Amino acid sequence: MRNILILIEYDGTNYNGWQRQPNAASVQEEIEKAIYKVTKKQTDIYGSGRTDAKVHALGQVANFHTDSAIPTEKFAVALNTNLPDDIVILNSIEVPEEFHSRYSAKVKTYRYRVLNTPVRRPIERNYAYHVREDLDLDIIKTMAKLLIGEHDFKAFSSSGSSVKTTIRTIYDIKITKENDIIEFEFTGNGFLYNMVRIIVGTLIELGKKSTRYDIQRALMTGDRGFAGPTAPPQGLFLKKVSYNLDIKS
Amino acid sequence: MRNILILIEYDGTNYNGWQRQPNAASVQEEIEKAIYKVTKKQTDIYGSGRTDAKVHALGQVANFHTDSAIPTEKFAVALNTNLPDDIVILNSIEVPEEFHSRYSAKVKTYRYRVLNTPVRRPIERNYAYHVREDLDLDIIKTMAKLLIGEHDFKAFSSSGSSVKTTIRTIYDIKITKENDIIEFEFTGNGFLYNMVRIIVGTLIELGKKSTRYDIQRALMTGDRGFAGPTAPPQGLFLKKVSYNLDIKS
Repeated sequence: MRNILILIEYDGTNYNGWQRQPNAASVQEEIEKAIYKVTKKQTDIYGSGRTDAKVHALGQVANFHTDSAIPTEKFAVALNTNLPDDIVILNSIEVPEEFHSRYSAKVKTYRYRVLNTPVRRPIERNYAYHVREDLDLDIIKTMAKLLIGEHDFKAFSSSGSSVKTTIRTIYDIKITKENDIIEFEFTGNGFLYNMVRIIVGTLIELGKKSTRYDIQRALMTGDRGFAGPTAPPQGLFLKKVSYNLDIKS
Repeated sequence: MRNILILIEYDGTNYNGWQRQPNAASVQEEIEKAIYKVTKKQTDIYGSGRTDAKVHALGQVANFHTDSAIPTEKFAVALNTNLPDDIVILNSIEVPEEFHSRYSAKVKTYRYRVLNTPVRRPIERNYAYHVREDLDLDIIKTMAKLLIGEHDFKAFSSSGSSVKTTIRTIYDIKITKENDIIEFEFTGNGFLYNMVRIIVGTLIELGKKSTRYDIQRALMTGDRGFAGPTAPPQGLFLKKVSYNLDIKS
């Protein structure tokens, strides 16, 4: 059995998220169906992590085991002819038997796009969070720096998720503005459930000069109330998952 | 009766084009329905021109006559609350009685986006023409220059359209490449049916170093056979319509 890694881009607009589930379209199910069409064998795939409904991926990673005769590098093309046009396999490579997309992941990068205009923009409706109010980008950049480093991000996670620890390290937060789009790029060793969206939601409120939220207190106390609302899903893109492997993208 | 001009952005993906028609969703119908909800009067709107199914607009212009008591500048907001999220009114202003979005138009600008990558990209599927083959941008830019100026563009129009003359003037063609997107921007005094898409289709084939098409002969003979295939609709955006009026956008 070979262990095959696939690098995946998808537009999450029409899916109820990455994870297979009854009675709702998922990216995982579409890819598993394509693998079945190509190999004629029911095959489970393991993603690097779930993405929520309407969240996109530019570089999601998954892996699966197969004894199919199809050469590894041909898998991408073979799967693509069996996938809908909002999902594509960018690459397929063989990885060591012990490789697991989720457990072997070292670094993840997420992008979040905010459209900052008085009037909504139809073309961006599925790919950005529309904020009408004027945002102070200097405040946002200054506040974002407080989040870099190893912290307990409990206040920036949705309750109900059962993780061993809520301590994570954010290596970098890049914030750029081009035309009316503010782009956030978060790089870290892992992110809690909804963590990126809550961080963005908090930074946006601070950028509106709200005094209701407080990043330092949120980090110190772990109290969700000091963090802002969860930003909507359509602005979020899983950009990259890094491993101690050389994965071409 | 006031004559009100509206500046419109729309994502054409889910519409069968601008023009109202039986049994198919159109942008015009959605806006007319919104005007009805706001004014309680059936009102016809006049667009600057039709756009085909799946074609987008960043600055479509339309006008309509109304005796509604709603202040002109409030129309945009009032209509937007009654429009689906893939259509938006960017602005509403009063124009002279004799103004007609189509007949008064002086200059139009269209954008066309081409995604030039070996593998298709889901996020761009509704907003760009995907071309897998390597394109020679220098050839494309050189050939595009032949189209600038006043020419008979008969060879670059779809047959069956009944226009008085097929002579048009292209003032400028800007071609830029950023990341994997080639962006064409055409400015002219008017464009024949499918003219932008046929020009792009021709330039793309020339960029692939096809010797089957010939812009100079197409312009000289008016023979559609010398021009290339019609590029698909989803890459096309009506960017701007200019009048001898000062329209804020």
